[in-house]
Amino acid sequence: MTTRTVLHGIGVSAGTSFGPAAFVTPAAGVDASEPACTDVETDGQRVREALNAVAEGLKARAEGAPETSKAILEATATLATDRGLIKGIDKELKKGSGVTQAVHDAVETYANKLRKLGGYMAERVTDLYDIRDRATARLRGLPEPGVPTLSEPSVLIAHDLAPAETATLDPEQVRGIITEAGGPTSHTAILAAQLGIPAVVKATGISAALAAGEQVALDGGVGEIIIAPTEADTAELAERSRRRASALAGSSGEGSTRDGHKVKLLANIGTADDARKAAAFDLEGSGLFRTEFLFLDRDSAPTVEEQTKTYTEVLEAFGGRRVVVRTLDAGADKPLSFADLGEEENPALGRRGLRLSMMREDLLETQLEALAAAYKATNADLWVMAPMVATIDEAKWFEAKARSYGLPKVGIMVETPAAAIRAKQVLSVVDFASIGTNDLSQYTMAADRMQGELANLLTPWQPAVLSMIRATCEGGSATGKHIGVCGEAGGDPLMALVLVGLGVSSLSMAPSKVNAVRAALRVHDLSTCQQIAAYAIDSWTADEAREAALRVADPMLRDLL
Amino acid sequence: MTTRTVLHGIGVSAGTSFGPAAFVTPAAGVDASEPACTDVETDGQRVREALNAVAEGLKARAEGAPETSKAILEATATLATDRGLIKGIDKELKKGSGVTQAVHDAVETYANKLRKLGGYMAERVTDLYDIRDRATARLRGLPEPGVPTLSEPSVLIAHDLAPAETATLDPEQVRGIITEAGGPTSHTAILAAQLGIPAVVKATGISAALAAGEQVALDGGVGEIIIAPTEADTAELAERSRRRASALAGSSGEGSTRDGHKVKLLANIGTADDARKAAAFDLEGSGLFRTEFLFLDRDSAPTVEEQTKTYTEVLEAFGGRRVVVRTLDAGADKPLSFADLGEEENPALGRRGLRLSMMREDLLETQLEALAAAYKATNADLWVMAPMVATIDEAKWFEAKARSYGLPKVGIMVETPAAAIRAKQVLSVVDFASIGTNDLSQYTMAADRMQGELANLLTPWQPAVLSMIRATCEGGSATGKHIGVCGEAGGDPLMALVLVGLGVSSLSMAPSKVNAVRAALRVHDLSTCQQIAAYAIDSWTADEAREAALRVADPMLRDLL
Repeated sequence: MTTRTVLHGIGVSAGTSFGPAAFVTPAAGVDASEPACTDVETDGQRVREALNAVAEGLKARAEGAPETSKAILEATATLATDRGLIKGIDKELKKGSGVTQAVHDAVETYANKLRKLGGYMAERVTDLYDIRDRATARLRGLPEPGVPTLSEPSVLIAHDLAPAETATLDPEQVRGIITEAGGPTSHTAILAAQLGIPAVVKATGISAALAAGEQVALDGGVGEIIIAPTEADTAELAERSRRRASALAGSSGEGSTRDGHKVKLLANIGTADDARKAAAFDLEGSGLFRTEFLFLDRDSAPTVEEQTKTYTEVLEAFGGRRVVVRTLDAGADKPLSFADLGEEENPALGRRGLRLSMMREDLLETQLEALAAAYKATNADLWVMAPMVATIDEAKWFEAKARSYGLPKVGIMVETPAAAIRAKQVLSVVDFASIGTNDLSQYTMAADRMQGELANLLTPWQPAVLSMIRATCEGGSATGKHIGVCGEAGGDPLMALVLVGLGVSSLSMAPSKVNAVRAALRVHDLSTCQQIAAYAIDSWTADEAREAALRVADPMLRDLL
Repeated sequence: MTTRTVLHGIGVSAGTSFGPAAFVTPAAGVDASEPACTDVETDGQRVREALNAVAEGLKARAEGAPETSKAILEATATLATDRGLIKGIDKELKKGSGVTQAVHDAVETYANKLRKLGGYMAERVTDLYDIRDRATARLRGLPEPGVPTLSEPSVLIAHDLAPAETATLDPEQVRGIITEAGGPTSHTAILAAQLGIPAVVKATGISAALAAGEQVALDGGVGEIIIAPTEADTAELAERSRRRASALAGSSGEGSTRDGHKVKLLANIGTADDARKAAAFDLEGSGLFRTEFLFLDRDSAPTVEEQTKTYTEVLEAFGGRRVVVRTLDAGADKPLSFADLGEEENPALGRRGLRLSMMREDLLETQLEALAAAYKATNADLWVMAPMVATIDEAKWFEAKARSYGLPKVGIMVETPAAAIRAKQVLSVVDFASIGTNDLSQYTMAADRMQGELANLLTPWQPAVLSMIRATCEGGSATGKHIGVCGEAGGDPLMALVLVGLGVSSLSMAPSKVNAVRAALRVHDLSTCQQIAAYAIDSWTADEAREAALRVADPMLRDLL
């Protein structure tokens, strides 16, 4: 008989739930004790049978899967019986490698080839590793790795989940996700939130504390896990979810604090289609329209006409509501075939954003012309801003350029520490600024957003990042200019309180997050937000900053996480 | 008859001189009008002859060259007749490419192969391009690109100079360097200063304004260029040099401002040999001992004994003077074969510095053990600091670790904006900090140090970088902790005044720069330094910051630049 145990991790996807624990089987790896290959034909036959079985298994799973996952699973099944792969395995067997060693080595060779091809082919490497792990398990007579077939709605327990595994989960069958490893900004965390599956990461000790099939409850907001929960526990968790639903249900209209301090609630969008979908939500416009999609994956730049059409559609979708357009943010990390500046050692620190626009003025001019035309056609509340500004000169250059096309509101993104610490001077030459918390965190902490192992450095709860945001807001306040936030931080109800407390007056986020943020603002006075911000910024670590904010916030805030 | 013309660029290597202009010939490139190859044998023979001539030319130059350049030139000559390269060219000719096209394409293919091999082989790519350009010029009947053979001491004029070209210049023959492009932090600028050749970069229009052989004078300190100088001009320049020499001659002893505010003047070193050379200078110790050389280019980590020996030698060289040791600063950009973390998309934002030490504690522990042993053996004034600190937790972790080995003074590098803006908190857990201005500029401006095109963003004169330095000094002042500077900024006499004005109390630099910095400090009161710093930090651009500082500083300061 197990007793009730409470563990804590990091809540990354809101909601409470409970169910029997289902363990995700880890990959088995090469069998260190397997015999060397002495009979290539027999061993080759064994491997081929294993791969065929893997392919059949994937095809069977594809049949029951939703439309988007189906295509992925079928493509992976095809890859399992790829001739090049099988040839490679035979080659390794001929060298004398044992069967699982041969599979691993051949897959690695093949993976390297795919990586060199880049693009779509490089992305198939993950699928290739999936095949390797499934085939290895079959050859070793072990259970197939990955998410088990669930006979009832369950809570998944894993060391870590690959994004591909997370993406194919069925929210009807998976009531919750708990991982030992992972971080709050990992793709898995983001995907779980999108699927609406409650999730807790960094739950140290969970695998050891829990047996398969044992009941486990979780609160993906505050990160609480209860093994063998009592009825009172599950009732309490259900009550939290109920309170959450009711808090959200009451959320509508303009964003503001309890005492009426207005905070615009806006949507991040990337296409005209996004715009139409977002405009249907109860929100006040778009705080970030990323224009890259118009430019990527094509051989020539989009014409003025093509761009004007799209911008007009976006502005029309939002009617009179505000739309903040960010000009092209491409560069070495998002290369354009028609504006290739060559490879860079550190693309994130390279000729991206406004730097590219300054080298290819034609691209920016076409875009500004199209924006001006769309503005004339709609008379919308159009704001235009430049990405990756680091100096006053750059801001002045962009401002003059945008102004010359008759655009009414011209601003900049604050993403570099330089722009943050010099916000007062930079803001003196433009109308507004919007803080990109993702890149600002990356540069402030000098930690790559693409480097999963540094995820703990990359949260906006890092007091150093909060200090940069404060510096930006102080610049805004000194110059009377508007400061918005359009990174992921804007969609976190607790962080939203901190940002408003620091002086941010608009928050842009995924449309689905607006309700929770609005509800959080409604129950806090501006002075409470300021107090929460002060506690967070005076903390020594990111974790302590978040805990301090949670301690000062109204208890109902927990229901929104 | 030309008239006297004055141009301005950026002075990057102090000293004045004059002489006839000698133009560096740019590379010719592919001949767009050349016929396609129809006779592989004849064309192949032509290319082989060109390559042989290139090899002979390089060998001839090697004979007269100094020892270090000789090896480089001979290796390049060998590469010119590399069989793989010649095979590649034949292959291109067979495809029908004209001779110069074939050379370019084959070299590119070969260069890519070398790049993939990495390390030493990748560095040969520059040599390969040199061969390509020389062979192309021969095939096209054009003069060989690069530095011409000088018949008399001359001033070199170039669009830009490759570091390899600069490194092989003979200071006896090259009286000065003027480039149209380039930047103050480029390798060429640094090499020119090391060779003691006066140099001005970003001299826009110089090539058009000047004819070969025409007299030109330059002041590599203030960046002034005079075409067809009068006798009064050259006398004035010579007078500047004389004043400079006399200002420097009077420089000796402890660093301090005119009113006696002490500023330690220290040397940056990388090896025990550096230590012995630096110790012979009139300076107060080493403010940055980079320990990487012990770890790079070898198959296994150095033992405690090996490290103890080197550290003891370094400490002994400086006697009782201060030595600040930076623990291993390796990572994806400086990979170690025995601690390979794999490739990273943005190595500068990756698992480098202390981050690597936290993943490979054994490496750090061995190093600290060796430092503790060297300290016991010498009882020197040993300070130890960690690179790439971004959070208080990291600083605490390093402090506890170093303390546990009995090391007396434990500090951190301030290189990330996070450490700068949170200096007060970070400094509260360690004894001191040293600002690495190069990396701090890189992260603050979000601009890669390796990306030449962004050089204008990368000067410590950027007011945003100065703001980060000020934030660090405020943290030092609030906690009573020592703040040093060990980036290139420390060796610039004018910047040294700004740094001292901001609150920096030690400056570490190339030993050859100590005299000029000491002389600059001696003629300014601390309050003047503070005023200079205030003017610089309140400027809008890097250029304005430097000009403002120069305006407020004592006029004799110009003689030291």
